[in-house]
Amino acid sequence: MLISFEGIDGAGKSTQIQELLHALNARGVEVLTLREPGGTAVAEKIRQILLESSHEISPIGELLLFSASRAELIQEVVMPALASGKTVILDRFFDSTTAYQGYGRGIDMEVLRSIIAISTCGITPDITFYLDLEPEEAMKRKFSKTSIPLAFQDDELDRMERSGIEFYRKVRQGYLDIARINSQRFVWINALDSIAVIHNRILALLKERFGS
Amino acid sequence: MLISFEGIDGAGKSTQIQELLHALNARGVEVLTLREPGGTAVAEKIRQILLESSHEISPIGELLLFSASRAELIQEVVMPALASGKTVILDRFFDSTTAYQGYGRGIDMEVLRSIIAISTCGITPDITFYLDLEPEEAMKRKFSKTSIPLAFQDDELDRMERSGIEFYRKVRQGYLDIARINSQRFVWINALDSIAVIHNRILALLKERFGS
Repeated sequence: MLISFEGIDGAGKSTQIQELLHALNARGVEVLTLREPGGTAVAEKIRQILLESSHEISPIGELLLFSASRAELIQEVVMPALASGKTVILDRFFDSTTAYQGYGRGIDMEVLRSIIAISTCGITPDITFYLDLEPEEAMKRKFSKTSIPLAFQDDELDRMERSGIEFYRKVRQGYLDIARINSQRFVWINALDSIAVIHNRILALLKERFGS
Repeated sequence: MLISFEGIDGAGKSTQIQELLHALNARGVEVLTLREPGGTAVAEKIRQILLESSHEISPIGELLLFSASRAELIQEVVMPALASGKTVILDRFFDSTTAYQGYGRGIDMEVLRSIIAISTCGITPDITFYLDLEPEEAMKRKFSKTSIPLAFQDDELDRMERSGIEFYRKVRQGYLDIARINSQRFVWINALDSIAVIHNRILALLKERFGS
């Protein structure tokens, strides 16, 4: 089984993935959690290029780099894990590409579809949990964790995060459209709910759809 | 005007590009020479990943990385240079992708065509000089330059070069097919001819096709 989590940074994906990992492990399910971009030696190097904030990358270059990282992760790690019967939880997958590079950067959807098909080897999650949060709230959450004065906080942002609030509004709109179009696979979750409420909803949904 | 040079390493592309650069400069033509992969800060980092011999990369990952490097070079450097009236000489362009990732690695040609269209922004060279050389001869040329005993020479090879002679035979077959299919743009040149003979042939062809 392949489960993916989506949402803008700060929505609580990592927390929910940890909660779900523990809950599944407690039930004896073997789980592998992975984060995009990254997850193999080559993919981690690509991650560095993508997130380093010191240089500009064109939207198409960004798309191809994310996709190269994904192709490595899928072929080297995800496919063997699924084949051996493990459950894989992905922190971001191709819906991030549609939301960020499609809605956010404005890349043509036909181009995205063909690159996604190539880089994923056709693999689709069985279920995707989308933690929905307004970008303003996500920024507040990020900076409430630091004690750095606001004027210096730009240095704390990676290259993607520097794209600005307007970019993140388009990304969120993208996720909402994806949720509407893929209503079977894509589960909308209010990220303002408490950690426990969200976690229990995720567990209940998994039980309802895939049994215990 | 956009001129590209193709051929396996050792065929003499760099030498001929230098010769052509000097000849065009002497005639007052402003020329920019560029090498793939690489040519921008981001593309050079991608080059490092691609050529470092310490890790494996899947054929699709390799294709996407070469294409990301190309997208950066085309948008950041080649398009502005062409727009400003410069002549651009490329040491490798998308025909390398067809030959190496298509014929060499066996990636589907439809996949290649769509990725090439995306990464090049539709730009095609006005003329391509293909220096044809048998892989065995290329290897001989490479190692005649070193004094390293044969047993240690594997350390001298980058990740692409370690792909082995059978890979390079397929690449060469790819180039020969490309030459047949694109007989207008693609000029076949015998890389065993002398530097001066090849250079004069290139100059004569450019004059014949594009005037002085």
